[in-house]
Amino acid sequence: MRVATFTYRGARSVCRLLPSGDYIQPIDLGSSGQQAGVLALIDFAAGGGTLRDAGDPIPLKDVKLEAPIPRPRRNIFCVGKNYRDHVQELSKGGFEADKAKEDLPSVPIIFSKIPDCVIGPNCTIRIDPKVSKKIDYEAELAVVIGRGGRHIAKADALSHVWGYTIVNDVTARDLQRDHQQWLIGKSQDSFCPMGPWLVSCVEFDLKNTNIRCWVNDELRQNGNTRDMIFDVPTLIESISAGITLQPGDIIATGTPAGVGVGFKPPKYLAPDDRVRIEIDRIGTLENPVALWEG
Amino acid sequence: MRVATFTYRGARSVCRLLPSGDYIQPIDLGSSGQQAGVLALIDFAAGGGTLRDAGDPIPLKDVKLEAPIPRPRRNIFCVGKNYRDHVQELSKGGFEADKAKEDLPSVPIIFSKIPDCVIGPNCTIRIDPKVSKKIDYEAELAVVIGRGGRHIAKADALSHVWGYTIVNDVTARDLQRDHQQWLIGKSQDSFCPMGPWLVSCVEFDLKNTNIRCWVNDELRQNGNTRDMIFDVPTLIESISAGITLQPGDIIATGTPAGVGVGFKPPKYLAPDDRVRIEIDRIGTLENPVALWEG
Repeated sequence: MRVATFTYRGARSVCRLLPSGDYIQPIDLGSSGQQAGVLALIDFAAGGGTLRDAGDPIPLKDVKLEAPIPRPRRNIFCVGKNYRDHVQELSKGGFEADKAKEDLPSVPIIFSKIPDCVIGPNCTIRIDPKVSKKIDYEAELAVVIGRGGRHIAKADALSHVWGYTIVNDVTARDLQRDHQQWLIGKSQDSFCPMGPWLVSCVEFDLKNTNIRCWVNDELRQNGNTRDMIFDVPTLIESISAGITLQPGDIIATGTPAGVGVGFKPPKYLAPDDRVRIEIDRIGTLENPVALWEG
Repeated sequence: MRVATFTYRGARSVCRLLPSGDYIQPIDLGSSGQQAGVLALIDFAAGGGTLRDAGDPIPLKDVKLEAPIPRPRRNIFCVGKNYRDHVQELSKGGFEADKAKEDLPSVPIIFSKIPDCVIGPNCTIRIDPKVSKKIDYEAELAVVIGRGGRHIAKADALSHVWGYTIVNDVTARDLQRDHQQWLIGKSQDSFCPMGPWLVSCVEFDLKNTNIRCWVNDELRQNGNTRDMIFDVPTLIESISAGITLQPGDIIATGTPAGVGVGFKPPKYLAPDDRVRIEIDRIGTLENPVALWEG
């Protein structure tokens, strides 16, 4: 099942994509769906409810797709340096010039983005030159938790996953470096494009899924989930060891090589750029870039 | 004004402390106060409302005080290494033994704790030996934002503050180190004792306030806000430069010297310990320590 949060005639609701790919079928989640989007569907399913359709199919072209979870209930868990080739480009590219040789992490590096920086497909990534001029993209597979838990064992981990979506872990490289901890550089307003589709586990192949990212028409990132240093079950086990995971939690699993800071000279985002991320079986997340207004 | 979230006869509400110090006066915030605690009061005040009493005063000894904001709407912003003597003890104490001399940060180090690790006064800090045995305390002054904003200038910053409370930034030192980014080590379940009182700005002196912490009856931390490297206006300016602050946001401003990892050998928390933090004009936050159950 591929589900999304959408707006149609001014009202937010939740839908699934019909097999033709041209129509969506609204799902009946009442007022909670209008508030929380797909988060309401996840809660409903976690409570054992059976989904029901609401009304007639609508042409996909007539609706506006949003981030599946427009406002997560808490911070997004993010994984740093989870692809070998990305670790190498960071050390070579001068981003961590103080380290002659970048060691691969022995346990996952987990940081977070604040929930209010989430934006939907086609919404604008904002550059505020007063704050940073070194804005970078990071195409990532994001895991959405369906069933919470603590001390989740690796072997059980995938049974806690509702599905997968796309996140662009937009990053201000100068702020990331200067503040040492990454929260500020990763959580600037508009820095978390997400969506549009959340795809259920059965339709997904964690062992062989391409992650690609274009800036304008230049292919920058071309990775595959098989190259993750820590796979999704390991990430869930690691985070949930002492932190109780909740339905609707989002884990962005790290980015492959090809980010802007890895080029010489670096290729940071500029106004009028468009960033397009494609992940097999999920779809396409595209966002324009513009200067901050006001 | 000193306000708190409390439970009385099974129902949560919001109160102010009467001048005698022995009685609290419930405040009328309806059902939103029962859900959100003092967060409802902050929202109500931000909306221009005038506070009204609800019912008769209640003896303080008859109510259970909770964290003023039992469940923040998003992550808590936390400041690392914001007192010189604490920076020195970290470098001397072997926590960052790879650095011969710890440099003072040139911009604030900002990380976060997830909102669900908040616990109230007298609630139990849990040690799960399967996850960490190096649990440490950090007594901190916490700022609560009353009026949101972006690009808040240092000179205006204090007009955005509702008031001040106490946070214990409990930390698993091994997880903090191993995961490189601090989110996991700082966000374990139960790792953010907070409260009980939120004290409005007019009653507070940012330039000369003692912060003390005892473990059992041993005074461990004895600092003063005058020794902050980055003062509160600077922290607000720095965070809000590119992240829109919201009413109810919490900024834990860093801890002075005397944490467990700074001793030789380190003095980590153990079951049956009690951690007591006192901050002038706010009050006392005390929490027992016990093993994780289940």
